[in-house]
Amino acid sequence: MINKNFSASDRAAILVEALPYIQEFHGKTIVIKYGGNAMINDALKASVMQDVALMKFVGINVVIVHGGGPEITGFLKKIGKETSFVSGLRVTDEETVEIAEMVLDGKINSEIVTLLNRRGLRAVGLSGKDADLIQAEKKLATVYDGGEKTKVDIGYVGKAKQVNIQIVNDLIARGYVPVIAPIGVGEDGKSYNINADYVAADIAGALKAEKLLLLTDTEGVYKNFEDKSSFISALKADEAREFIKSGIISGGMIPKVEACLRAIERGANKAYIIDGRLEHSIILELFTAAGLGTEVE
Amino acid sequence: MINKNFSASDRAAILVEALPYIQEFHGKTIVIKYGGNAMINDALKASVMQDVALMKFVGINVVIVHGGGPEITGFLKKIGKETSFVSGLRVTDEETVEIAEMVLDGKINSEIVTLLNRRGLRAVGLSGKDADLIQAEKKLATVYDGGEKTKVDIGYVGKAKQVNIQIVNDLIARGYVPVIAPIGVGEDGKSYNINADYVAADIAGALKAEKLLLLTDTEGVYKNFEDKSSFISALKADEAREFIKSGIISGGMIPKVEACLRAIERGANKAYIIDGRLEHSIILELFTAAGLGTEVE
Amino acid sequence: MINKNFSASDRAAILVEALPYIQEFHGKTIVIKYGGNAMINDALKASVMQDVALMKFVGINVVIVHGGGPEITGFLKKIGKETSFVSGLRVTDEETVEIAEMVLDGKINSEIVTLLNRRGLRAVGLSGKDADLIQAEKKLATVYDGGEKTKVDIGYVGKAKQVNIQIVNDLIARGYVPVIAPIGVGEDGKSYNINADYVAADIAGALKAEKLLLLTDTEGVYKNFEDKSSFISALKADEAREFIKSGIISGGMIPKVEACLRAIERGANKAYIIDGRLEHSIILELFTAAGLGTEVE
Amino acid sequence: MINKNFSASDRAAILVEALPYIQEFHGKTIVIKYGGNAMINDALKASVMQDVALMKFVGINVVIVHGGGPEITGFLKKIGKETSFVSGLRVTDEETVEIAEMVLDGKINSEIVTLLNRRGLRAVGLSGKDADLIQAEKKLATVYDGGEKTKVDIGYVGKAKQVNIQIVNDLIARGYVPVIAPIGVGEDGKSYNINADYVAADIAGALKAEKLLLLTDTEGVYKNFEDKSSFISALKADEAREFIKSGIISGGMIPKVEACLRAIERGANKAYIIDGRLEHSIILELFTAAGLGTEVE
Amino acid sequence: MINKNFSASDRAAILVEALPYIQEFHGKTIVIKYGGNAMINDALKASVMQDVALMKFVGINVVIVHGGGPEITGFLKKIGKETSFVSGLRVTDEETVEIAEMVLDGKINSEIVTLLNRRGLRAVGLSGKDADLIQAEKKLATVYDGGEKTKVDIGYVGKAKQVNIQIVNDLIARGYVPVIAPIGVGEDGKSYNINADYVAADIAGALKAEKLLLLTDTEGVYKNFEDKSSFISALKADEAREFIKSGIISGGMIPKVEACLRAIERGANKAYIIDGRLEHSIILELFTAAGLGTEVE
Amino acid sequence: MINKNFSASDRAAILVEALPYIQEFHGKTIVIKYGGNAMINDALKASVMQDVALMKFVGINVVIVHGGGPEITGFLKKIGKETSFVSGLRVTDEETVEIAEMVLDGKINSEIVTLLNRRGLRAVGLSGKDADLIQAEKKLATVYDGGEKTKVDIGYVGKAKQVNIQIVNDLIARGYVPVIAPIGVGEDGKSYNINADYVAADIAGALKAEKLLLLTDTEGVYKNFEDKSSFISALKADEAREFIKSGIISGGMIPKVEACLRAIERGANKAYIIDGRLEHSIILELFTAAGLGTEVE
Repeated sequence: MINKNFSASDRAAILVEALPYIQEFHGKTIVIKYGGNAMINDALKASVMQDVALMKFVGINVVIVHGGGPEITGFLKKIGKETSFVSGLRVTDEETVEIAEMVLDGKINSEIVTLLNRRGLRAVGLSGKDADLIQAEKKLATVYDGGEKTKVDIGYVGKAKQVNIQIVNDLIARGYVPVIAPIGVGEDGKSYNINADYVAADIAGALKAEKLLLLTDTEGVYKNFEDKSSFISALKADEAREFIKSGIISGGMIPKVEACLRAIERGANKAYIIDGRLEHSIILELFTAAGLGTEVE
Repeated sequence: MINKNFSASDRAAILVEALPYIQEFHGKTIVIKYGGNAMINDALKASVMQDVALMKFVGINVVIVHGGGPEITGFLKKIGKETSFVSGLRVTDEETVEIAEMVLDGKINSEIVTLLNRRGLRAVGLSGKDADLIQAEKKLATVYDGGEKTKVDIGYVGKAKQVNIQIVNDLIARGYVPVIAPIGVGEDGKSYNINADYVAADIAGALKAEKLLLLTDTEGVYKNFEDKSSFISALKADEAREFIKSGIISGGMIPKVEACLRAIERGANKAYIIDGRLEHSIILELFTAAGLGTEVE
Repeated sequence: MINKNFSASDRAAILVEALPYIQEFHGKTIVIKYGGNAMINDALKASVMQDVALMKFVGINVVIVHGGGPEITGFLKKIGKETSFVSGLRVTDEETVEIAEMVLDGKINSEIVTLLNRRGLRAVGLSGKDADLIQAEKKLATVYDGGEKTKVDIGYVGKAKQVNIQIVNDLIARGYVPVIAPIGVGEDGKSYNINADYVAADIAGALKAEKLLLLTDTEGVYKNFEDKSSFISALKADEAREFIKSGIISGGMIPKVEACLRAIERGANKAYIIDGRLEHSIILELFTAAGLGTEVE
Repeated sequence: MINKNFSASDRAAILVEALPYIQEFHGKTIVIKYGGNAMINDALKASVMQDVALMKFVGINVVIVHGGGPEITGFLKKIGKETSFVSGLRVTDEETVEIAEMVLDGKINSEIVTLLNRRGLRAVGLSGKDADLIQAEKKLATVYDGGEKTKVDIGYVGKAKQVNIQIVNDLIARGYVPVIAPIGVGEDGKSYNINADYVAADIAGALKAEKLLLLTDTEGVYKNFEDKSSFISALKADEAREFIKSGIISGGMIPKVEACLRAIERGANKAYIIDGRLEHSIILELFTAAGLGTEVE
Repeated sequence: MINKNFSASDRAAILVEALPYIQEFHGKTIVIKYGGNAMINDALKASVMQDVALMKFVGINVVIVHGGGPEITGFLKKIGKETSFVSGLRVTDEETVEIAEMVLDGKINSEIVTLLNRRGLRAVGLSGKDADLIQAEKKLATVYDGGEKTKVDIGYVGKAKQVNIQIVNDLIARGYVPVIAPIGVGEDGKSYNINADYVAADIAGALKAEKLLLLTDTEGVYKNFEDKSSFISALKADEAREFIKSGIISGGMIPKVEACLRAIERGANKAYIIDGRLEHSIILELFTAAGLGTEVE
Repeated sequence: MINKNFSASDRAAILVEALPYIQEFHGKTIVIKYGGNAMINDALKASVMQDVALMKFVGINVVIVHGGGPEITGFLKKIGKETSFVSGLRVTDEETVEIAEMVLDGKINSEIVTLLNRRGLRAVGLSGKDADLIQAEKKLATVYDGGEKTKVDIGYVGKAKQVNIQIVNDLIARGYVPVIAPIGVGEDGKSYNINADYVAADIAGALKAEKLLLLTDTEGVYKNFEDKSSFISALKADEAREFIKSGIISGGMIPKVEACLRAIERGANKAYIIDGRLEHSIILELFTAAGLGTEVE
């Protein structure tokens, strides 16, 4: 992979130029929401693993929360199970949530763990059920029926009611990289599928993380998506709330920005929406002056 | 569930009579291989969870290794995948091992974790991939073809090459109950399905456990299975090896006894084959004078 | 001692039914005031030792404070020393307190320590002199002379002025069972005999104990002692103070209830007056649904 | 107590001259056998307490083992109990050992503890029963009957079979001064009275103490007691054994020297017989060039 | 050095009489400003080193801050560099501060370190540059020009802006004796020469020291320097401020008293001006009833 | 300093390519001998400081040993002191060693400390006198007089007799960067100037360092210095000794290679002679594939 165009001294110079950034984050905790293309494309996957390894070896406590919607859909299709969505949320009956958990916890999670361990890290997979990490409750879907806003029960879709962060802290303290599947556990012991962005936000908040990085399939937030020059590189929390209310932030960007806000409200320092479609987007964000993505603070 | 026939003072007396046993195991580590009927029947399941909770609260470090063959078969059937066996081992192609891992790690493991947590414990699920706990290599099946013994490649069926027990010790030291799915990871990062009895034996050995308890669907070892009076309650390791060679121990009992021997060779103190079809078989074995099952030492 | 009428599975069932209680007290601190018949009758003595051993092995930090009035009286008689009492308190000259200390610290205390150690515990005897645990001052007796309430000096009878709990915490932290004789030390280094119920209360308060259990020779508190149906199983602190003022609680029960109140005021969570004349009264109270004695909270 | 003849600068000079000695013992463990006149005479008693306080504050870990024969005899006389001796050992029936324990543990021990605490230390009394510190077995008296050497059972007189030093180390580690009564506990839980010199030797050995100091009512060992110039200030262990065999060391000096030898054999560095009849004999020995007593090494 | 006029028992008595003082300071932190004659005269030097060794071995955490003005002047003279003073402060150009640092840190400091280590201590030299211990800023000289008070820049003369005490605490915690040269570091990395009395005060304050001892070439504070009977042995802080304002304290005594006030304001308990021209002045002050010097509290 | 020719993604790629190297040295200890041009030229100086900062922040324990011969010579010249050399060693009288210590410890050392602290590290300067780190003895110069080899006393030139590494380990354990001046302390407390290469070797050996890096003013070892193609990039220890004996390694290269051998003999893993005249030579050596300098192992 080594590009012959860089001399050894170029390399040394560039390492040195990364020093202030490395210094800044040394000893801090950073939560990464890993999903989208970065989780599907093999080159991007490898690049994320390298980025995480670099973070860990320069002294950053890394925690990963991953999604897996497309793989769940794929597996459901494989077993001939129809999937329907209400307001963007999957209608999730008992069989569906069981499949979702198997795919998230028994396949995607352990694959990420294995890839990180191959890079010399010591990763440990968790779901929200381990040590009751994420205690969940049912989340109703909101639908607009003739202008009326109503709430609809769509099954085992949940939201975090309480986060018991001890197990994550215990693993970090011993040098492990926790990798978390977005499954919560209800009071009755049932599994709930939770939006991974929100789980990442809750985890980042509970850890008082320095940063939450949401790897997405977008460049970040635009004031006007058509006008590339309207890109917003930094958003104050109040502004973000305002933009959602006024419709400037809309569609699929809303939950991303809401996750950022949620992380900050619960104790994280900053949150970023970054473009996971770029190779080494995490390193670019953390260790270069490039100024990638949209920061919410 | 309270049986009205016991007076409070009967209860107190019985608790006191359990004291010497509790004392004996306080602070020790016990590994339980959980499988068979005890994992299927709901009443037995509840009884195992209670037994583990009691063990934990009287100061025993409990580690659980579980199997899940029947559930894997069931799930493969559900997705229309044919299963074939060679010498009792499942022929395991890439799709099969993926399903096996999903069922073991993403379903059975997290179900056990959740049941234990509902009992007030703090259980954490692991597979052999977490922190490279179980590094595996391919295991060939042995077939007898016209008297000739040959080895056959049946895919992603493995055996442990190395056990990195640190993560288990770290969790025990912080009071968690590790629950381990019998999946190993190859040098190439591939998953391997491993016999859970052997995994339990390797884990018990690496932990220098006081006891390995194999919960089985049998009462233990008989010299002559037809003659109930020939039950063997204790077997020296040498004797056990002799009985296997001479055919006294045969069929499905061989791997059970071999797992016991393996645990002891690698550092466990004692190993037991006990009848998981009885309610509270673990408590009966540990905390009463009943003398259940067959002990190998 | 094993009662043949219980099958092994009965035993297992009963152990399991004790689980919620064990769970509740695991890791908590419980102070036992040990005295009365439970200290004289050999069967009861054995039963208390077993109860303490069980408590310790299920993870409870146990601290014992003992009395010894009758043995002191016996020994004084042996050396031909007359004993007189004023308002229920022994008139205690220098020779008397010396004998009291010898009996309490050099005989009863070390006997309890030895009995516990024979049960596999590591008990350590303390008196209030060790590490200045109980700094005492003189307590005057109250007498009513012709309706006039006056205070009378009866010698080396004391009350705790300050409790230096560090040594008890240090011993607990290393797994020892502290056994405390109710002797305090004055500023001048003199010994003072202190009511053991009050010492237990002070110790329980200083430790912020979960429970203080006073083993007495009574069933607990009655509204009307003649009417067995008037038994009070739980008393709020305010109510208790009211009952003392109004005379519902009277005689020898007053200091018991006052000790309970004192423990709670100083930081213990709950205090109980239980019947030490029953075998395994502690286990009955802690680990069964039996609901023994009177609780003050 | 301040002697007006010393100027402040004299005082400073003397403190400075003690520095090399203080330095030598800083952080070391020294066991003192406290008995004889030093325990009876009030001025000597005060002087020992001061010496111990000084040792402790200059960073020495001090452990005290005390005797108490005369006080036991006194108390037995008080209750009209006859005492007989065989070969210098008290015939000790059950009542006698009970009294001995009460006097040693409940009177002398707690008095020493209190005196030390008044000096600003944190002393804790132990007997050999606490945490099974001294496990004892019966010691027979040797009598010579017509030239025949026979062994006679004289009751509850014991010797240490095993020393469980953990509790002493735990207390030292937290800064306490352990004060130990020479009572051992038999397998049956019975008390045994043990020679305090030997207990001190066993404790010093188990602690790998830098020094054992036996405070005695003699100046040390003489080659010829009549000839003051034959005083032996240092004895090699082999020499000491030789001198006992040859009769140069005889009578009451034998057990003293044997205790010194025993301490060294079991791990102590040096042992001293010093004259406890001198004020501040410990300080003289440790912190001045005076060269008191007889050293066995 | 041993004075033959003291008997061993005199010596023991004097050690014992020092006990209450030793006890009082055991475990406390004391900062010594070492300068003046005590640093020049060889006998005094040896006496200070002994005093520090004694302090350390009786359990006091000692920190030393030293000066070195005369040696700096000497060295400057040696290299033919003229020195001028403004209002008592040395005009300090870049070459001068370089020489000052070399003399203070590379000569005086390491000499003190070596002397202490020869006494069996483990001393470690620091300057204010180590771990940014003393962050400095320029201090202007105050001059009175025709009644007008003006500020004059005299170069690299500084005052502490911030004290990062961590390195001192880390060394103390591991048993080292920190020896500190009064050099601060500016934001630009330049060295600043700081008055050692003030550095000692700042260090004592940051450590919440029990005492600051300023070794000076005076006996302490007089109300009227001519009248020896007007010696002030204790000064309240308010009083001290008042005396400076009213001129009772004047001249070279002002910075000494100000340093004492500064130490107290920043967290030290007491501060003393003592006569370093006396042998063992520190021991006299700490460990005898002599009552040396002036205390500010 | 940022080179505009590198894109952000180039930078990210290069960081990632450094990952295996970072991983390899994470948690290891590396000793740098800092001297020569790298200590004189300002750009090189800055580059070394950056390299050290980078090492520290990627988890390497860095220890620096520095020289300073030219600066000592310069200062001696400044004060008009003549310097003579015997066999390459400076004749060092008392005044010379005093100046050497002042320059090394009071100027160069504290300058390096300050430069590192400005980079966000916490550096602490030590000389061999601190905590008796380097106990030295006199080293004689070897001269050849008419073919006769004789030893000549040249004053306070020393070699390490013992290294007390505790203080270095204590500082490393708390995250500090120790910076060590090559001054040793004799038994008499006198200072000795020691060759910094050898000090670095002794320190690396005592620390069991992963690497010793000698920054020199040469590219490394050549078989034939005239023939650039004869450069030796790796030398086995035996080979190195052979080359010295046979004269292939000669002149100023001998002490460098001997220092490498010394480090390895005493416990370091590898030692390197690298070209300190290149910017970022340390990073080039550690974190790129460039393969700089000569390795001795």
